[in-house]
Amino acid sequence: MATLKDVARESGLTVGTVSRVLNNRGYISDETREKVYAVMRELNYQPNEMARSLSKQKSNTIGVIVPHIVHPYFAKLISNLEQAAYELKYKILLFNSKGKEEKEGEYIEMCKSNRVAAVILCSGSFHTEQFRKLDFPLITIERFLDEGVAGIECDNYRGGVLAAEHLISRGCRHILHIGGVSGLPMPADKRKQGFEDVCRKNGVEYKEVEPGQAYYDDMHYYPVICQTLEQYPQTDGIFASSDLIAAQVIQVCARKGIRVPEQMKVVGFDDVNVAALTTPGITTIRQPVKEMAEAAVTLAVKAAKGDMVPATSMFPVTLVERGSTGNGKPEASR
Amino acid sequence: MATLKDVARESGLTVGTVSRVLNNRGYISDETREKVYAVMRELNYQPNEMARSLSKQKSNTIGVIVPHIVHPYFAKLISNLEQAAYELKYKILLFNSKGKEEKEGEYIEMCKSNRVAAVILCSGSFHTEQFRKLDFPLITIERFLDEGVAGIECDNYRGGVLAAEHLISRGCRHILHIGGVSGLPMPADKRKQGFEDVCRKNGVEYKEVEPGQAYYDDMHYYPVICQTLEQYPQTDGIFASSDLIAAQVIQVCARKGIRVPEQMKVVGFDDVNVAALTTPGITTIRQPVKEMAEAAVTLAVKAAKGDMVPATSMFPVTLVERGSTGNGKPEASR
Repeated sequence: MATLKDVARESGLTVGTVSRVLNNRGYISDETREKVYAVMRELNYQPNEMARSLSKQKSNTIGVIVPHIVHPYFAKLISNLEQAAYELKYKILLFNSKGKEEKEGEYIEMCKSNRVAAVILCSGSFHTEQFRKLDFPLITIERFLDEGVAGIECDNYRGGVLAAEHLISRGCRHILHIGGVSGLPMPADKRKQGFEDVCRKNGVEYKEVEPGQAYYDDMHYYPVICQTLEQYPQTDGIFASSDLIAAQVIQVCARKGIRVPEQMKVVGFDDVNVAALTTPGITTIRQPVKEMAEAAVTLAVKAAKGDMVPATSMFPVTLVERGSTGNGKPEASR
Repeated sequence: MATLKDVARESGLTVGTVSRVLNNRGYISDETREKVYAVMRELNYQPNEMARSLSKQKSNTIGVIVPHIVHPYFAKLISNLEQAAYELKYKILLFNSKGKEEKEGEYIEMCKSNRVAAVILCSGSFHTEQFRKLDFPLITIERFLDEGVAGIECDNYRGGVLAAEHLISRGCRHILHIGGVSGLPMPADKRKQGFEDVCRKNGVEYKEVEPGQAYYDDMHYYPVICQTLEQYPQTDGIFASSDLIAAQVIQVCARKGIRVPEQMKVVGFDDVNVAALTTPGITTIRQPVKEMAEAAVTLAVKAAKGDMVPATSMFPVTLVERGSTGNGKPEASR
């Protein structure tokens, strides 16, 4: 592998001159610059990022820890984080915790020994202990974490409000909310609060189910949806806490001969690709994932440089109407 | 940040002894070992992976380049690659090329300067030039590449055969194949060959459409599906080259009042989560993505060590029956 020294020797210049060309520092004639570039190409010289990182004790890498990769919400999030990082010349080291504490701990150690510039955490069963003595900033997305430098959230409460208001405006009178993960306190819990407040204010009857961690892990909500619909047969509207759950609600309804949207209206959350791929398409609360990912990366880079960053950033959500609540327009794309 | 020297000084031992403890080399008493570990914890010492990588000029990182992250096939692939890498103590540097050549080239340069152990390439518009003079092995998944060390594929031809045979056995007589990307030669092209051979052998009329790169990029096949169904109104069975396309076929049929599976039977390809989330669920050809990802990582690590690896590895596919071809069983999970 060619080194800086090899380039200097081949081009008949000093290492200092070659280094100045590489780092674009000081005065260098066009002739010299071109000569150095020609030799670099000839020798297939690659500046060694690892050596650079070592000398400054930080890499231009951001660790990203998620609980799922195949879950469409996290796939969309990772995609947008990668794009935002690319634009700031950072790379993504990707870790899938599967919600397991020991794996999360191990990943944090890996991030430490790889001298990442920052970690973006979208997984949250960590004990706070593990987050002490970190020498990089920790940015969370849709998670609470005392030790985090900055948290990114969408306006979950408003999302719950919009969902309930929409179902009620479409004539639903017996509404059901299917929550996500129980146990761990999460910003997403506020969806339920917004939903409840609107139902109470409008005097509409509502029920709630929390499927729990096991369903979240395998993403397979069939049994709990079936059981809930049998328990509450009057239900005419469902607010699911993710599009993934809403898609499965539509399937269970089809199997039970309940027509969506005529007999049952369904609202999801997230606005991931699945919402636009089901039949009918899913009316949903859109998280601005692109903007949230951009903010997470920007704050990570700023915080890594020692700049002050806002402790929480909350992004607005919007209602996207599709067929599952009776809107007949063509399915909107992502 | 604590160094090896700090640990040595604090524990009253030599740097050599501390290093032997860290690397588990030579004889070390339990007492010494425990003392070193205690001091390491106290000082929050982290072995520096970057320094280690630099000394051996290779990191324990594998670059993964995909054309999409949100596409459910690639999301599933990335998830399985990350898991397989984790088991072999490797990390994933993730790059989303969006099929753009200049981005792919830039990523390969990033991989070079980060001294990755290997690159797994699932994106394929590269000029072969860019792959010369690489000092790491290149493993491809479902792509052709002359310069690649090893290619992983599924049995695409057999997939096309299974899809056509299934549609014919369910009574379809006017079958349509909707292909994926045109232009670039890909292993997936063999799906079409298998499909054609079976249709011809059975004397069944068939048509083919190739939506092309633009549709692949934005994953939104609506217009081309609508247009094709208007062009070939007799169609009673469709073999789509991905579950993503199949999901959109089901939506277009619903909009046109064509009942699936009664009037139109649909078979997809991949068996990603979307296939189990549509209504009805999608009968599909399952790629063994987990096994393919494990093979890719194993071969990458072997090849990085200089071991010989098979030039191509082809994995079997299977038919998974769901509602879109008339199977009434509950949707199978992933």
